[in-house]
Amino acid sequence: MARHITFGVILTGTGGPGEHNRWLDPEIPGDASVDIDWYIEQARTAEQAALDLVFIVDSQFITPDSPPHYLNRLEPLTLLSALAVRTERIGLVGTATTSYNSPYNLARRFASLDLISRGRAGWNVVTSGDAGTAGNYGLDEHYDYATRYGRAAEHIEVSQALWDSYEDDAFPRDRESGVFLDPSRLHATDHHGEHFSVVGPLNIERSPQGQPVIFQAGDSDEGRDLGARYADGIFTHASTIERNRAFADDIKGRAAAAGREPENVLILPGVKIIVGDTDEEARELELAQHRLSNTFDQALGELGRPFGWHDFRQYDLDAPFPDVLVHAERSFKTQATQIVELAKAQSLTLRQVVDLHAAPRRSPFVGTALTVADALEAWFRAGAADGFNIYVSQPSQLRRFIDEVLPILRERGLARSGYEGTTLRDHLGLPKPANRHTLARAAAEADLVAVP
Amino acid sequence: MARHITFGVILTGTGGPGEHNRWLDPEIPGDASVDIDWYIEQARTAEQAALDLVFIVDSQFITPDSPPHYLNRLEPLTLLSALAVRTERIGLVGTATTSYNSPYNLARRFASLDLISRGRAGWNVVTSGDAGTAGNYGLDEHYDYATRYGRAAEHIEVSQALWDSYEDDAFPRDRESGVFLDPSRLHATDHHGEHFSVVGPLNIERSPQGQPVIFQAGDSDEGRDLGARYADGIFTHASTIERNRAFADDIKGRAAAAGREPENVLILPGVKIIVGDTDEEARELELAQHRLSNTFDQALGELGRPFGWHDFRQYDLDAPFPDVLVHAERSFKTQATQIVELAKAQSLTLRQVVDLHAAPRRSPFVGTALTVADALEAWFRAGAADGFNIYVSQPSQLRRFIDEVLPILRERGLARSGYEGTTLRDHLGLPKPANRHTLARAAAEADLVAVP
Repeated sequence: MARHITFGVILTGTGGPGEHNRWLDPEIPGDASVDIDWYIEQARTAEQAALDLVFIVDSQFITPDSPPHYLNRLEPLTLLSALAVRTERIGLVGTATTSYNSPYNLARRFASLDLISRGRAGWNVVTSGDAGTAGNYGLDEHYDYATRYGRAAEHIEVSQALWDSYEDDAFPRDRESGVFLDPSRLHATDHHGEHFSVVGPLNIERSPQGQPVIFQAGDSDEGRDLGARYADGIFTHASTIERNRAFADDIKGRAAAAGREPENVLILPGVKIIVGDTDEEARELELAQHRLSNTFDQALGELGRPFGWHDFRQYDLDAPFPDVLVHAERSFKTQATQIVELAKAQSLTLRQVVDLHAAPRRSPFVGTALTVADALEAWFRAGAADGFNIYVSQPSQLRRFIDEVLPILRERGLARSGYEGTTLRDHLGLPKPANRHTLARAAAEADLVAVP
Repeated sequence: MARHITFGVILTGTGGPGEHNRWLDPEIPGDASVDIDWYIEQARTAEQAALDLVFIVDSQFITPDSPPHYLNRLEPLTLLSALAVRTERIGLVGTATTSYNSPYNLARRFASLDLISRGRAGWNVVTSGDAGTAGNYGLDEHYDYATRYGRAAEHIEVSQALWDSYEDDAFPRDRESGVFLDPSRLHATDHHGEHFSVVGPLNIERSPQGQPVIFQAGDSDEGRDLGARYADGIFTHASTIERNRAFADDIKGRAAAAGREPENVLILPGVKIIVGDTDEEARELELAQHRLSNTFDQALGELGRPFGWHDFRQYDLDAPFPDVLVHAERSFKTQATQIVELAKAQSLTLRQVVDLHAAPRRSPFVGTALTVADALEAWFRAGAADGFNIYVSQPSQLRRFIDEVLPILRERGLARSGYEGTTLRDHLGLPKPANRHTLARAAAEADLVAVP
């Protein structure tokens, strides 16, 4: 396989979900999530190593118990637009929800980021799992699952139609003739669907990569179908080689069934990488990091998230796990269902479920640089991953990955030593999508020629 | 008056409304409106001269006949966020509509820009005059006038409430005690109004200037009330000293009636400044620039804009001006009414109205550097303006303003030679608004003390 391993870096400032105390680490500024200079520094570090992209997560609902990064953070697209002019090559992927954005507005913002970055924008499409988000957008309750996924699919389709408003040769800008626009190359959208109605056209031209790259995560049946139909990159959890291989095969199978080239759908598990001088030292660091943020009480609070931030403190810890799946209906349903089913199958009490969640997890990507490089290669070669979205717990760990792990992968021909192209699609080995109207005209002209 | 003259620079890339052919000027790159480097260069030029702000206009509806800048442009907030990290001090003011944005989403984007720029963000509140915008947001027709202005007022109030979600001391981030957030300093919004319902809180802290600065334009009665109640800066047209003085007095009177300090509402007419070696040379340049874009046909097309881009080509040019005010109902009604009333009062034909619109206008700010400086000073001293929003037709003209006009004003004590503060509020001489919850608690505590 000629392709290298794709690497994204998840930039989360003061720590991700389940990491309430990451900011206590002296390496992490307490205000990292609202400090643009901190983001610029991390992104430039990743770019110097020719990594493919940085990735910004998002959520728009908080309670006083939310992890620090969620409490106080920059909005992904304004953040990425600032990074766009302080970096040169690295891809810029931001999370935005299809549940609480208008397609015209959001498509325009991504198109603008794509031009500002000269073709490096990516959109991580989410439907918002935090049901409380609805209250910030005038709804009494969050959309049901079917509506969320129906909106997501239609939102992507409208956005891609809007992004093709102008063909690539729409602007002659010819001073001799005084012709700025060729109006035959401007196309209204005229979309009137179940969830959205958008006349168009969008008032912004295509970028050097044609359209922003689509990313998606979501493990439910609906989520997998959505990703397989529309996404160029799929973010997922890293479990085991076998399970992730099965996930990748499933997605690529669905993509093929939808008429797409499976190799143009990149599977990118999110992984925690910790490099130590010895495997033991790295495992100890993993455990120390885990313990920093996983007290029983924090795990009890965090357990509520997939259930719409349901408060589990109201239940008897030693009674059987309560019957709470109803609260997950408009939240992170897949994740909640897995928790409930496991508790049922093993007859677990609430305390046992919390203990399981607070228990240390062992990432497959912890050890010496060689151990980590071997694990990454094994996953890649087994077809369990086309690349990895790296969660960086500490800036010094990003440096160790870059300085110690990457050289090994480069030696093995699995990582680039520099960028070969300029756009995010170039980095990912994805073709630039042709404008649909240009294609349609070419097809019509071919038909005319073909008719005797 | 201790205050200097405020100066904004309107950055419009390939030209503003009525300037279809500005891009033919060799100084203007044909793709200026989508070239972030062009914007960065202009903003840095303005910043080197310690001007107060750059201003980005907007619209979200185009036809093939729209002026080049409208056809293809960057979205204001992504654009300004990029400028934020390539400038240090200059204010960054972007246009965004309250008709087709959700308050939570938009307030969050401005708050993010405000943090990224370390307190330099401003929001030019508009209600969208182009009725066709509705079609891009799922509506059959644009909101009526009352709804537009009702939404605008409520949108600003919700946004300002959201921006006060965190008090300034909300984040102890104390590593000793492990306390990141003081939850007593986090406040839900719980707004349930006629147009919007937003539970909050916003997940982003206040910037060094407290809240983004509010700008507004709008000449109707509703528009003037909105500006007087909420705006820190009012953009308006430059007509004559007398008329602008009357406008300023009216706005400041309304502000005082609403309980505000009139001097904290800055009146900023938009002006075209052209500097020449002689007054005659400057006037010739003005005329040449005017003729470039004001053919009869272009004026005929442009006349349609306030009437919802109504097509006037369907009428007999030599018949009385047609009865078309109905088309302006959900568009730029005030401007359209003025046109219709003038035509009626003077019994003008359509051709005569178009001729009037295509006729050269003489800006009061065209001439030698001394002429321009004198005019600016006269307007400022007469109370017709607290400052000016300069429309720059050519980069070389911005340079001449900076190199030739500003030194004269500095000598007269009317312009700064450098920034005295770091935030946009500092530049404008506006106080940092205290957080409403901090104020309320202080008031409650004072009450407790006062009670014997």
